[in-house]
Amino acid sequence: MAAVTFELIHKDAATGARAGILHTPHGKFLTPLFMPVGTQATVKTLSPHEVQNLGAGVVLANTYHLFLRPGAELIRKAGGLHKFMNWTHGILTDSGGFQVFSLGDLRKISEDGVTFRSHIDGSEKFLSPEISIATQAALGSDIAMAFDECIPYPADYDYTKTSTERTHRWALRSLEAATNPKQGIFCICQGGMYEDLREESAKFIGGLDCAGCAVGGLSVGEPKELMYRMLEVSTKFLPENKARYLMGVGTPDHLIEGVLRGVDMFDCVFPTRVARNGMAMVSPETAPRGRLVMKNAEFTEDFSPLESHCDCYACRNKFTRAYIRHLIRADEIFGLRLLALHNLRYLQRFTAKMREAILADKFSEFREKFFDAYDNGSNA
Amino acid sequence: MAAVTFELIHKDAATGARAGILHTPHGKFLTPLFMPVGTQATVKTLSPHEVQNLGAGVVLANTYHLFLRPGAELIRKAGGLHKFMNWTHGILTDSGGFQVFSLGDLRKISEDGVTFRSHIDGSEKFLSPEISIATQAALGSDIAMAFDECIPYPADYDYTKTSTERTHRWALRSLEAATNPKQGIFCICQGGMYEDLREESAKFIGGLDCAGCAVGGLSVGEPKELMYRMLEVSTKFLPENKARYLMGVGTPDHLIEGVLRGVDMFDCVFPTRVARNGMAMVSPETAPRGRLVMKNAEFTEDFSPLESHCDCYACRNKFTRAYIRHLIRADEIFGLRLLALHNLRYLQRFTAKMREAILADKFSEFREKFFDAYDNGSNA
Repeated sequence: MAAVTFELIHKDAATGARAGILHTPHGKFLTPLFMPVGTQATVKTLSPHEVQNLGAGVVLANTYHLFLRPGAELIRKAGGLHKFMNWTHGILTDSGGFQVFSLGDLRKISEDGVTFRSHIDGSEKFLSPEISIATQAALGSDIAMAFDECIPYPADYDYTKTSTERTHRWALRSLEAATNPKQGIFCICQGGMYEDLREESAKFIGGLDCAGCAVGGLSVGEPKELMYRMLEVSTKFLPENKARYLMGVGTPDHLIEGVLRGVDMFDCVFPTRVARNGMAMVSPETAPRGRLVMKNAEFTEDFSPLESHCDCYACRNKFTRAYIRHLIRADEIFGLRLLALHNLRYLQRFTAKMREAILADKFSEFREKFFDAYDNGSNA
Repeated sequence: MAAVTFELIHKDAATGARAGILHTPHGKFLTPLFMPVGTQATVKTLSPHEVQNLGAGVVLANTYHLFLRPGAELIRKAGGLHKFMNWTHGILTDSGGFQVFSLGDLRKISEDGVTFRSHIDGSEKFLSPEISIATQAALGSDIAMAFDECIPYPADYDYTKTSTERTHRWALRSLEAATNPKQGIFCICQGGMYEDLREESAKFIGGLDCAGCAVGGLSVGEPKELMYRMLEVSTKFLPENKARYLMGVGTPDHLIEGVLRGVDMFDCVFPTRVARNGMAMVSPETAPRGRLVMKNAEFTEDFSPLESHCDCYACRNKFTRAYIRHLIRADEIFGLRLLALHNLRYLQRFTAKMREAILADKFSEFREKFFDAYDNGSNA
């Protein structure tokens, strides 16, 4: 049996939104699934026990960062990434491609792979499909991602076509390079902002013998309507029986729109990054567009929790908005922790509610209710 | 009955080192007692539940910082400092004097009090014994400290004498200003580095009707032998039936030497500050002078915990030295948290062991064993 499989449990009658189970060597996880990002083998500011307690099943770790520091060989010697970071549930590693391509002038692409300079010490490094997969095999993640190019936005048609076709060849090489039987490999569709290329890419990737399919190259600066259309064209041609993962997406509105278009898995640094900027993610009923900026003076004497109905550590223990505001203004790390815990728990509760709505064939109602509050909030 | 009292349980037969119980409105705590510092209503990087789980009974919060931000009135409205920061055990607040006097040229002393400029926004502020005590009453700490001047080192005899006598008058004014019946006030001996002034100050402070006596103005840069002698002269003249608190001291060698000289309570930022610099505090048997510098290359592939016999969160869960080194090098906050938890737990275990040795009349042996390892370590 394959290391990683997807079990489709139910499709919402009206929309086709999916509820399923992702089976991995470190447990099975309900979808829709949001994966917190643990770039450098730690979800920023949190302990693995805290991440587990907030209900997260799978975390994402970044191959680029771990490849450079501390190095995959060290983590292999430590017994693999799970043991190294003390995380007993699922881990998905990205391929390193996204970070390498983000280096801009510091990298050079060839058919073989990408030469780049480390952001840490400037030394020259090389990543290819084979090296990425070998690195991820050493890390021992449950899910490894094929090496791809995340095309910047905007990009012209010719570049997009050339790059997407290379990503396809790299996907084949990634699958060829697989050696770890306890790891599933997901391949990534690209195609930029061109419908025909998106369709072509989804058909190609969907036809590969991989454990799951990801949609890459979205949420890179394009208007959201364009993102939603490109996503639709992609998922339409992906097989039903494999998990679909929309990479780098993590705001509640994008999650709903992704699930509506047949996506099962998401990851994003958003909840932990905005926590570090002092922002709490809340339901749109609580605040306009679901966001509280904790430094705002309105919270100075606000002795209520972030959300009274929330069961996260911060809200359950009645840490007040006034206290969190104080911590954020005073640059105290515990303030970031409380917000990170709340934001990640918010997304776990949110994905659980989406699943519940799908199982009850009420996803449309759920979505409408959310956007009614969300958009009303924005006018408030 | 007074809000805060001290119960002397046993004195080590050979040395007179003390084991006791500090009774406060928020529980009773065994001495010798080390108090972690929570400057801005949070022990840096940690949750109150973590601090409680590592066995800390009393935390110290800084009146100067809370006076400036968020302000004592806000904390009073929040229901007091315990509720504001979600801490159910003891809190000791300092008087603000130490921080104000550390401002150097930014402050001006008069008999009435100290005018200073806020380090946050440069605005002019004023602290006096009356304002400090009123502020601490609003914060609602279990133990408030009298307003004093912590004399810098070195200081000449005349300045030390003048300042110490003013500190005595301020102690009387602090006691006069007390209004909170649920709060005990500790007064502070000074006397700089002059035996006769230390003696005079201890006699004066020891004769006041206060809940406990602190020794201030030590560990301010003087040689440790001088510190120990000044401490000895001070505690000699303090009453037996009140707790004695050596302010701002927190390395294990200083703790032992303090307890040897009759001290019951300590506080210091040391364990949390060095955690932020990547240092683990360990027993001297584990490493020279009880310190591990986690960035050192020797820990690159060290897959053992900081200390295998330690029961802190980090060691109990077998987070390895290699992982902690990785986190510290990668500037990940979770690395600081693991070290802060370990260091504070180390000091809690250390004070518990001192108590045990005192109760068994074996404090001398305990001390000798510690320094044998400590000094051997330093030559290793």
